[in-house]
Amino acid sequence: MTYLVNNEEDFAKEAVEGFAAAYESYVQPVHGGVVRATTSPKNEVSIVVGGGSGHYPAFAGWVGPGMAHGAVCGNIFSSPSASQAKSVCKAASNGGGTLILFGNYAGDVLHFGNAAQQLQAEGQDARIFAITDDVASGTPDKHLDRRGIAGDLFVVKIAGAAAAAGKSLDEVEEIAKHANDRIRSLGVAFTGCTFPGAKEPLFEVEPGTFGLGLGIHGEQGISSHEMMSSDEIAKMLVDSLLKEEPARENGYEGRVGVLVNGLGATKYEEMFVFYRTVKRLLEEHGLTIVAPVVDEQVTSLDMAGLSVTLCFLDDELEELWLAPADTPAFKVGNLKSSDEKRVVEEESAEKIEAGSAESAAQSEIAAKIFAAFEKKAREAEKELGKMDAVAGDGDHGQGMVLGTTAAAKAAAECVKANAGLRTTLARAAAAWSEGAGGTAGALWGSAIAKAAGKLSDTQKVSLQDVAQAAIVAARSFHEMGEAEVGDKTIVDAASPFADALEEGNADELPEVWKSAAAKAAQAAKETAKFVAKKGRAHNHGEASIGTADPGATSFAMLMSVVPEFL
Amino acid sequence: MTYLVNNEEDFAKEAVEGFAAAYESYVQPVHGGVVRATTSPKNEVSIVVGGGSGHYPAFAGWVGPGMAHGAVCGNIFSSPSASQAKSVCKAASNGGGTLILFGNYAGDVLHFGNAAQQLQAEGQDARIFAITDDVASGTPDKHLDRRGIAGDLFVVKIAGAAAAAGKSLDEVEEIAKHANDRIRSLGVAFTGCTFPGAKEPLFEVEPGTFGLGLGIHGEQGISSHEMMSSDEIAKMLVDSLLKEEPARENGYEGRVGVLVNGLGATKYEEMFVFYRTVKRLLEEHGLTIVAPVVDEQVTSLDMAGLSVTLCFLDDELEELWLAPADTPAFKVGNLKSSDEKRVVEEESAEKIEAGSAESAAQSEIAAKIFAAFEKKAREAEKELGKMDAVAGDGDHGQGMVLGTTAAAKAAAECVKANAGLRTTLARAAAAWSEGAGGTAGALWGSAIAKAAGKLSDTQKVSLQDVAQAAIVAARSFHEMGEAEVGDKTIVDAASPFADALEEGNADELPEVWKSAAAKAAQAAKETAKFVAKKGRAHNHGEASIGTADPGATSFAMLMSVVPEFL
Repeated sequence: MTYLVNNEEDFAKEAVEGFAAAYESYVQPVHGGVVRATTSPKNEVSIVVGGGSGHYPAFAGWVGPGMAHGAVCGNIFSSPSASQAKSVCKAASNGGGTLILFGNYAGDVLHFGNAAQQLQAEGQDARIFAITDDVASGTPDKHLDRRGIAGDLFVVKIAGAAAAAGKSLDEVEEIAKHANDRIRSLGVAFTGCTFPGAKEPLFEVEPGTFGLGLGIHGEQGISSHEMMSSDEIAKMLVDSLLKEEPARENGYEGRVGVLVNGLGATKYEEMFVFYRTVKRLLEEHGLTIVAPVVDEQVTSLDMAGLSVTLCFLDDELEELWLAPADTPAFKVGNLKSSDEKRVVEEESAEKIEAGSAESAAQSEIAAKIFAAFEKKAREAEKELGKMDAVAGDGDHGQGMVLGTTAAAKAAAECVKANAGLRTTLARAAAAWSEGAGGTAGALWGSAIAKAAGKLSDTQKVSLQDVAQAAIVAARSFHEMGEAEVGDKTIVDAASPFADALEEGNADELPEVWKSAAAKAAQAAKETAKFVAKKGRAHNHGEASIGTADPGATSFAMLMSVVPEFL
Repeated sequence: MTYLVNNEEDFAKEAVEGFAAAYESYVQPVHGGVVRATTSPKNEVSIVVGGGSGHYPAFAGWVGPGMAHGAVCGNIFSSPSASQAKSVCKAASNGGGTLILFGNYAGDVLHFGNAAQQLQAEGQDARIFAITDDVASGTPDKHLDRRGIAGDLFVVKIAGAAAAAGKSLDEVEEIAKHANDRIRSLGVAFTGCTFPGAKEPLFEVEPGTFGLGLGIHGEQGISSHEMMSSDEIAKMLVDSLLKEEPARENGYEGRVGVLVNGLGATKYEEMFVFYRTVKRLLEEHGLTIVAPVVDEQVTSLDMAGLSVTLCFLDDELEELWLAPADTPAFKVGNLKSSDEKRVVEEESAEKIEAGSAESAAQSEIAAKIFAAFEKKAREAEKELGKMDAVAGDGDHGQGMVLGTTAAAKAAAECVKANAGLRTTLARAAAAWSEGAGGTAGALWGSAIAKAAGKLSDTQKVSLQDVAQAAIVAARSFHEMGEAEVGDKTIVDAASPFADALEEGNADELPEVWKSAAAKAAQAAKETAKFVAKKGRAHNHGEASIGTADPGATSFAMLMSVVPEFL
C-alpha cells in the first residue's frame, strides 16, 4: 500500500520535489525532472536517464558525477512526455551530445525517440538507447526486444563512467550497447504493488506462490510456482541466467558483476540470505564476482520480490563498472566533484494568442468536450487501470485521467485568452501528452495535434472540417502506433470509427458520429474480452506496441461523449 | 511478510553471512557479528554497535571508516548475548578502549553491560551507552529512559567521527552522550511486520488508521489515528519534535540534522513526498537543515511507516555529523580508507572436561530435561510470541525456542563428553544466553549458571542439592531483573515457585516441585490475563525491565516438565 499521499495525482511530482530537496547537493529540479547540481566538463557527453516514477533509485537517484547528468521523471509507471525529456536533455547538455538511456518500454521509446528527433532538428546530437536485460520477456535470439529492468544500473553506470572518462558520443553509445549485450536479469515477485491513492494492489500474486519473471510493473511472468526456500529460488534464477553466459573468450574470462535488487518491500536481511547462495552458486560455476551490489536499485513501488542481474565483464566493462561515482543512491570509491553550481535557465511560458471571435466561440465548445473527457476518464479510471494491469503495466486509467485533465485545463486557459479553435486544440494536445506521458499520452497528444492542423484560429469551421479533423486524428493511431486492426489495440476502435465518419454525411455529423462511436464501442468490447482473457498469455508488458491493451475501450468511451456538443 | 527464508532459525545468521559476503571490502565476519575488513590506527577508540537483527542498515551497515568498528548481530529483534558482544569488542579493539552504542532496550543493556564488565575485568576499557531518542516512549524529564530508534544513526555517526578524529575514550563517550541529548525522534506505523517463517504479522495496525509512536518492534504507540494526508502526518510529527527544541543558546543556533527514516515497506517516493513538507515546516520554524538524510537507516523488517529524527546541532556536533564516513549503508564525502586487511584471530573452542561416572549419569538426566524444555518451547512458540507482541517486542517465543534448543544441544554434547552435572548446567546456561540473546536469554542463562554453582562435577548430588540449586536459580530472576512480585513479569511466577520449594520437604522433591510448579502456573495465569488486557496500555516496549511480559508463562511452562525426571 501507499500511505503517505496528499493528492494522488500530484504524488510523482511531489516525490521529485522532495527528492531534489533532500539531495540538493547532487541535483536541481528542472521542467520534466532533475539535472546535476554541479557543473560537468565542457563537451562531456551527457547521459540522460528516465522513465516512469515508482522505481527509485531508478532513475533520479543515479544523477551525479560518474553516472547520469539528468533524469526525466514521468508519472508513476508511466513514461515521461517528449517535452519533459527534451527539457531535461537541454538542461543537462554539456555540448558534447546526449545519450538517453531507459528500459525498453513502448511509451519510453516513443517519447524519448520523439525528444531526440526534436533535439536533432535543433542541431543537438541526441540519441536513444533502450536497455533490454529481462530474460523473462523474450528469447535469447531477440535479446534487443526484451524489457529493461534492474540491469539498467549496469548500463547507466558504465556509460556514465565512459562519459566521465571523456569518450565521444559515438564511443559512449557503443559502450552502452556493449554493456547491454552483456547483462541478463531475472526476477521473482511475491506480491503486487499499489498505486498511490489506490485501495487495492494493481495485481495480486496468489498467496503461497511466486511469479517467475514478473515485470517491474506487474507484467506477466513466465510461470507461477509454489513457494520455495530462498536457496531454491536462488538456484532457479542463477541457473536460468547462466544459460545465457557468453563463451569465455574475446576478453571475457568468467568475471561477473552481480546485482541482487530488491523490489521494495523485500527486506535487506532477505536479500542477504539470498545473496549468500547466489555467490556460492556463481563461484561453483567458476565465476569470479566483481563488486557485487545487494540493494534496492530499481524498485517497483511496494512490491515484494527481487531480481538477479549478471554482467559478464571484459576488461573495458570492468574498469568502467569500478570507476568512481557519486550519486544519491549509488556510490563507488572516492570522487571529488566540482563545487561549482550548474546554472540552468528556465524556459519562459509562451503567451496564448487570441483568435477571431467566431473561432473563440468554437474554442468554448472544444473546452467543454475536453472537460467531458476528463469527467468520463475519472469515472472509468479504476476499470481501465484494472484492464491494463492484466495486459500491461496498469497505468492506463491514471494516464487517461492525467491526460484529459491537463488537456481540459489547457483548453480552459485558451478560452480565457480568447484563443482560436486551432490553438486551443494544439495546446490541449501538448498538455495531454505532457500531462499523461506513457504510450497513450504520446498517441493522443499526436492525434489531437493532427486534428488541430485541420482547423483554424480565424474562420468558423464547418461540420465537414470537424469530421475531417476527427478522421485524421483517428487514423493517426494506426500510423503512429505501428499496430494493425486485429491487434487488440486502440486501432481496433479508431479504424472503424474513421471509416464510419468517412462514409457518413458530415451535414448530419451528430448522428453520424453517434453511429461511428457505437461501432468503436462494439470493437472495443471485443478487444476488452480478448484482453481480459488472453492479455497476459500473449504479451510481455509493453516492450513493444501492437499488443493487447485497453486503448480501444478508452477511445470508444471518449468518442461517445462528443455528439451532444456538436 | 518474509518470503526468502531457508530455515527460520538460521535466518539472522545467514543474513549476516550474506551481508559480509556482499560487503567484504568493508567487513569481515567474526563470532557474534562483523568487524571492519581494514585496519584502523593503533589506539583509536573502537565504536561497537549492535542489537537485534531485522533493522538493517542498523547496525552492521554502519561498520566502516568514520563510523563503527564492529557490529554485534543478535537474532531478529532480540539482543545479542554478552559473549557475542565480548567477541566482537575484542576483534574490533584498536587498543584505545571501546564504546558500545545501542538503542535502549532491557536485553541490550543487560548483555552489553555484562560484556563490558567482563572486558573491564580482563583489563580492556569498555563502556556502554544506550541511545534514547524516541519521544513516544517517555516524558522529556525522563529522556534517558526512552527507547532508542532511528536517532541511533546520529549518535553512531558522531561518535564514530570523534573516534576517527583521534579523541580519547572519555571524550568520545562525552560526545556520544551530548549527541544523544540533542536528538529527538517520533514515528508512525501503517502495518505490522512479520517474523521470518511466520505466517502472520507480529501485530497489526487497523486498516485505515495509523499508530503514532509505535516502536520499531511494534511496541505500543501513544495513540491510534484515522488515516491522514502525508502533509498532516508531517505536521503532527514535526510539531511534537519541536516541542523539545532546546533554547537557541550555548552554541545551538537553530541548525538541525534531519533524518526521515523508512521502516521497510514504505516507498522512497512516499518518503520524498513527506520530506518536502518536513523541510517546509522546519524552515518556517526558522531552522536551517544540515545534510538531511531521507533513506532507510533503521528498519523494522517489512513494517510500513517512517520516523523523523531531529538533531539540534552545535558547531562540534555539526562538524562531526559532516565528517567523511564510508560504510556499506552510510557514506559522507570522500574517505580514503586503509587498504591493509585487519587480521582477526579466531578463538578456539574450549574442550569439555569429563566428570565422575556418577555425575555424568546425572548429566544425562539434566540433558533430558533440557530436551524436554526445547520440545515444550517449540510447542508454545507462537502463543508466547503473540503474548509478547502485545506487551513487548514479540521475540519471546522465538527467544525461548532458540535458548532451550542451544541449551539442549550443549547438554547433549556434555553427555557425549561424559561431563559432570555442574559443567553440563554451566555450558547449557552459556549456550542458552548465547543462543537466545534478548532479556529472557540473559535472565535464564544467569539463573541456570547460578544453579550450576550449587552442583558438582564429581559427587552425586542429592535431592536437597537440586532443590537448593532450583531455589537459587528461581530467586535470581528477582535479583537480576530488578522487578518485584506484582510487576507481571517472570518474578511473579518464579518467587512463589521458590517459596514453595523452600517450604516443602526436599525428600519428596517430585511432589513438592509439582505443587510449586502449579503455584507458578496459577501466578502466570494472572500475569497473562493482565498482559493481554493491559499490556499495551502500561509499558513502552522493553526499554526497562519490570513491565508486563510473558516471562511468567514460559517459566511455569518449563517448570511443569521437570518432575517426571526427578
